[in-house]
Amino acid sequence: MSVPTVSKVLNGRPDVAPDTRARVENVIEQHRYQRRRARRSSRPALVEVVFHELHSAWATEIIRGVEQAAAAERAAVVLSELRDGHRPRREWFEDLLARRPLGVILVLAELDAGERHQLTTRSTPFVVVDTAGEPPPGVPTVGSANWAGGLAATRHLLALGHRRIAVVSGPTDVLCSRARVDGFRSALEDAGVPVEPDFVRYGDFYVNGGYSHGLSLLDRPDRPTAIFAGSDFQALGVMRAARELGLAVPDDLSVVGYDDLSVTEWIGPPLTTVRQPLREMAATAAQMVFTLARGERPVNERIDLATELIVRESTGPPRR
Amino acid sequence: MSVPTVSKVLNGRPDVAPDTRARVENVIEQHRYQRRRARRSSRPALVEVVFHELHSAWATEIIRGVEQAAAAERAAVVLSELRDGHRPRREWFEDLLARRPLGVILVLAELDAGERHQLTTRSTPFVVVDTAGEPPPGVPTVGSANWAGGLAATRHLLALGHRRIAVVSGPTDVLCSRARVDGFRSALEDAGVPVEPDFVRYGDFYVNGGYSHGLSLLDRPDRPTAIFAGSDFQALGVMRAARELGLAVPDDLSVVGYDDLSVTEWIGPPLTTVRQPLREMAATAAQMVFTLARGERPVNERIDLATELIVRESTGPPRR
Repeated sequence: MSVPTVSKVLNGRPDVAPDTRARVENVIEQHRYQRRRARRSSRPALVEVVFHELHSAWATEIIRGVEQAAAAERAAVVLSELRDGHRPRREWFEDLLARRPLGVILVLAELDAGERHQLTTRSTPFVVVDTAGEPPPGVPTVGSANWAGGLAATRHLLALGHRRIAVVSGPTDVLCSRARVDGFRSALEDAGVPVEPDFVRYGDFYVNGGYSHGLSLLDRPDRPTAIFAGSDFQALGVMRAARELGLAVPDDLSVVGYDDLSVTEWIGPPLTTVRQPLREMAATAAQMVFTLARGERPVNERIDLATELIVRESTGPPRR
Repeated sequence: MSVPTVSKVLNGRPDVAPDTRARVENVIEQHRYQRRRARRSSRPALVEVVFHELHSAWATEIIRGVEQAAAAERAAVVLSELRDGHRPRREWFEDLLARRPLGVILVLAELDAGERHQLTTRSTPFVVVDTAGEPPPGVPTVGSANWAGGLAATRHLLALGHRRIAVVSGPTDVLCSRARVDGFRSALEDAGVPVEPDFVRYGDFYVNGGYSHGLSLLDRPDRPTAIFAGSDFQALGVMRAARELGLAVPDDLSVVGYDDLSVTEWIGPPLTTVRQPLREMAATAAQMVFTLARGERPVNERIDLATELIVRESTGPPRR
């Protein structure tokens, strides 16, 4: 095989016959292509950040964290959004390989086994931020203490005297969403408060998810006196549902959010929420990519940063 | 001069003696280096987006617009933030040149004359989104109809019956901020309502700017009955100031924002605001870069997209 052919396959270029490509991939796999350690002087380093969806200030926080960590390493950040498949996936991935990035950071986005394999055989590390599903073995991840966050939020409501507490979380198939609900359950069980099955809701992480579950939970006589929402956006939706039903926050309903986006401090009433250190999570993932790209192992390949309950004015004792 | 030396200077690499660099830059300038038209097959195209500051959902909207336009051209988006100078500016710009991007999009960020010159001599187009200062001649810009937005917001308040109307806008040295205030003035003048000098305030575009001016405007007997804020974040700050002073929105105070970030629809009360089509502005800038990179001239080099008043619940007739 010629050097140009191998180079083409390494760079993910399409103009190689399928069986030639397969043979080259095979050789790459057997010999594990090692990228040169020294940065190629002719091409500044790139770090790829792949979002499932670019949404709201949440995405900005992640991008800032990566960007600042990358600046310290004199690397640039390339950004992609996969949502809606607004481009052919295969082309996108070929181009990513051809850019020869130092590494890839996946944000609630998933690669298929073939894509992971191609990165691995090219010694291109990838790190998952806030993993959706169970990450495959050997894939480094950075998340936050979702279970502990759910526990802290619910204990705060219990300590205020609430007993009828509902949770509205994200999709059931997203791990962080389920971990928050499990923290909620554990807090109730510790306190000897039974979990009402209908008070556990899953939806999407956006405002509408909180709004529609909020309406159906609050428009009934035995409504909850407190709702723990799986994101700040869901909390905004819950508060809007409460407003429409004439319920005051926190007098008639306490609401806890999740994320601590900067806007939550400024709305009325300022939101009690669980702070998720998005920028630090992203910076940690970027640093992990740089460590792996240098051929070193990170100290820990599964890192969860601490979450913190921020008590503001959307929670108070129940009226009844 | 050797080909590698010229190549080093073209690529912005530092390892060239200053006088050699000067000679090469001189030759580049005389002959105008023309990049090959066909995309280099070995390197997927890059578009650089340079933010002064990555902030909030505002930045996410811009990034999405560029990303979707770039995906359609099979180009990738590289992102930088210049704020706080968290990296050496010179290194950053050398690396940008060395990446040989198709073009550069500047978002409230400015290049100095030397940087602009280096891009021009390398036939690397750049487009300014939402220009801060007066852009130099020949620099394409994409913005929105700020003056018309300010006019529409103020006419809406006048039509509701307000006469004591204040404006809290962004910095005086940012063009879009001044254009919004001028639209405000024109609407009042048209209506024969004198402009009260102390009711025209400039600050930063973030929440605190709206909050501090809001407190000082509202904590006085002859307070305004309506405030037009130069950004949605400033409007949140004004609403918080109103809450703290016991004033209800819209009964005691009408508030209009600017931008139409998605969160404004969901807060209480949902915000009347001027929609700025951030995503479309960013996509237009990206398309302009692609047009220029193909060596064509865009139909128009100064584009302002329309703004639109979105009436929600934060505005109503004055009580008095």
